[in-house]
This record gives sequence, C-alpha cells and structure tokens, in this order.
Amino acid sequence: MRIAIVGAGNVGTTLGGGWAKAGHQVVYGVRNPTDAGVARRVASTGAAARTATVADAVAGSEVVLVATPWTATQEALASAGSLADRIVLDCTNPLKPDLTGLSLGQTTSGGEQVAGWAPGARVVKIFNTTGFNNMANPRYPEGAATMFYCGDDAGAKQVAAALASDLGFDPVDAGPLTSARLLEPLAMLWISLAIRGQGREIAFRLMRR
Amino acid sequence: MRIAIVGAGNVGTTLGGGWAKAGHQVVYGVRNPTDAGVARRVASTGAAARTATVADAVAGSEVVLVATPWTATQEALASAGSLADRIVLDCTNPLKPDLTGLSLGQTTSGGEQVAGWAPGARVVKIFNTTGFNNMANPRYPEGAATMFYCGDDAGAKQVAAALASDLGFDPVDAGPLTSARLLEPLAMLWISLAIRGQGREIAFRLMRR
Repeated sequence: MRIAIVGAGNVGTTLGGGWAKAGHQVVYGVRNPTDAGVARRVASTGAAARTATVADAVAGSEVVLVATPWTATQEALASAGSLADRIVLDCTNPLKPDLTGLSLGQTTSGGEQVAGWAPGARVVKIFNTTGFNNMANPRYPEGAATMFYCGDDAGAKQVAAALASDLGFDPVDAGPLTSARLLEPLAMLWISLAIRGQGREIAFRLMRR
Repeated sequence: MRIAIVGAGNVGTTLGGGWAKAGHQVVYGVRNPTDAGVARRVASTGAAARTATVADAVAGSEVVLVATPWTATQEALASAGSLADRIVLDCTNPLKPDLTGLSLGQTTSGGEQVAGWAPGARVVKIFNTTGFNNMANPRYPEGAATMFYCGDDAGAKQVAAALASDLGFDPVDAGPLTSARLLEPLAMLWISLAIRGQGREIAFRLMRR
C-alpha cells in the first residue's frame, strides 16, 4: 500500500521502516521536507523513503498515519488538505507535557471517589481489571494474568500485592491512586472485549524481555 | 489475614473463596446477614465462611475488600463505620448500567478529537498503546504484543489490522472509535509503567484460553 506518515519522529519512522521492509511504499509528510535532519532520519529507515509536504504526502496515499506530538496534531491535520474518505490511523495520545496523565477526556475515577467516601482509609485499587472467572483461575498457557494495582499507601499496596499473589496473579504496581483513571478504563476494555465476542476467557498480561 | 469482603457477588465470593483456600480468614459484610440466599452463596465458598453486617465485618478485619456494584458502593461505605487507617482494596468500576462505558471520569478522547479535525476521514485509533521499541520488534518470549485498535469504519479497521500484522503484532478489535477512551489510558499506563522503573521492554498481551 501507499502509506503517508505525518511526522518523522520515533514512532513514525519505526512504523515506516517496518512497513517499508514489509513491501509498502512509505512517504513522510513533514512541515519542512528539505530539512537535512529530517531527511537523514527518514533515509535511515529505508532506501526508498522520501519526504514531502503533509498535503503532498497525503494526496498520493491510500493510508495516512498521524504520528505527531499531540500539540502539533491539529495543525498537521489542518495542513493535510481534505481527508474525507481517507483511511487515517491515529497513533497520537493527548498526553500532559510532564507525562503524568492525559490532558483530555479524564477528570476523576471511582477509586478516587471511594477514597473520598472512606476518609482516612488506605485505599488500593485492585481486582477491578478482569473477570471473576480469572480471579478463580488466573493461570493461562503463556503465564499468569497480570493484576495491576495502585494506591498512595506503600504498606497497603504490599498487602494488596501479596493477596493477588496468593490467588496466582502476577501483581504489578501501577503507581498512585490517581492511576485508577487508567485501571478503570482497562476494566472497561476487558468487559467490552468479552461482550463483543471474545468471551470471558481472556486476560491481560504485562510481558517483559 | 482477617479479610472483610463487602458484597457477596461473583467477584467477592470468588476472591473470598481463593483467599480462604490460601489460609486467610474471610467474613462477608452484607446488608442482610441472615438472608438465606446470601448464606448459601457464601457457604459454597468454604466451610469457615460467614456473614455479618458490613460494620461488624469491617470492625474485625485487617483488610477490607469493596466488591459492591458501583451504585451500591457509597451506601456500603457509609454503613461500614470509620475506615480511617484501614487497608481498603477497591475492586469496583464506575460502569454505566448498559456497560457501554464508564459513568465517571471520562468525557472524550484524542481519537474522537482527531476525527473532528479530519472531517469525513475513516479514522482508526491504533499504534498508540506501546513504545516504538515494540513497534520495531513486537515479539516477546511468550508471544506477540497485542495491538488494540478501534474505529467506526469496518474497511479501514481491516487495513489497520493488516498493517499491524505486517509488523508482527497480534491485532485485536476494541470496538468503535469511542473506545479510544479506553486505549489512550492504556497508553498512559504503558508510559507510566515504563517511567516508573519497568523500562521500555514491556508490552501488553491479551491472552486467551
């Protein structure tokens, strides 16, 4: 396929390099196509890789990958010309500049609400990201299901992790209680996958290498 | 440990049963401890299991598991007595009654915003939930990293999934574009785990059995 990649950062050039190797035709749409640094970075991803303006790259493509930093995304799309009927793959994330959270779409969590309803309690968010079938048996052929947990009290988190281990889970610390804003959507993802046809015998695992 | 489980539904009784087997002492705090149905369900999780009022169960415990439906959570905590300094494990999720999303904390997503900036485009949210190191090589000892994607155009999603497969990912359909509200927090989880000491050589896999 002819793929336009908007943005030539780590994500864009890595995906572009992989697709070039897989036989796709890749062009990078960037603000300044003649910039020497961009040209070098793009060339390193494959002999045939080239740069163009965002509009030119998009015009000749079957698929557009948006791989810009979030703050540059609106402007990049505005400079792309019409995108009507185009296949647009969006791999951006609306991150806060300090990477402490998402700058868009999130306001609070059930975990924080529970802490508000239980004044002084050492609250840990845990056992919310999978079904009870996996709580009965968290062992899968590839390994144990991961149990993410978060909270603001180190001692309480140790207890929570041990109780997850007792059931056979692989416990993983996901940070402070505000990370419930990440774990509750993960629960919703599990539920929607289960409902949408995958069934309940699915579980998340955090792999390491 | 002495564990009070508030709520005797599927999640509460499964966790309670597992912990009883692991040697912990489990008591269920419920609205009506003498209810025959509750007593039967609780008895099925282990010989020593018993029920009590929420306040009594909590009073004698070292750890409190909150395993209520979201809409019953505030009332259950209010009936628990003081929870100050207690270890509280929160496994609730603020789900909408029809399970289409979270009722709390979420308003929109970058993916939906991108679709708004690209009128008519067939937007797929994809390649946002992992680092570029995994895009260069998504293969782990246990299997391929999962690449979740979502969008409202079936054809565009097929193309996106094929492009993920070309790189070695295991593509998994996460539903409509509004599921970007789930995939962007998943990205934030990956980032925060990587920053918080796990490093970048980690990846999510959806296991099946």
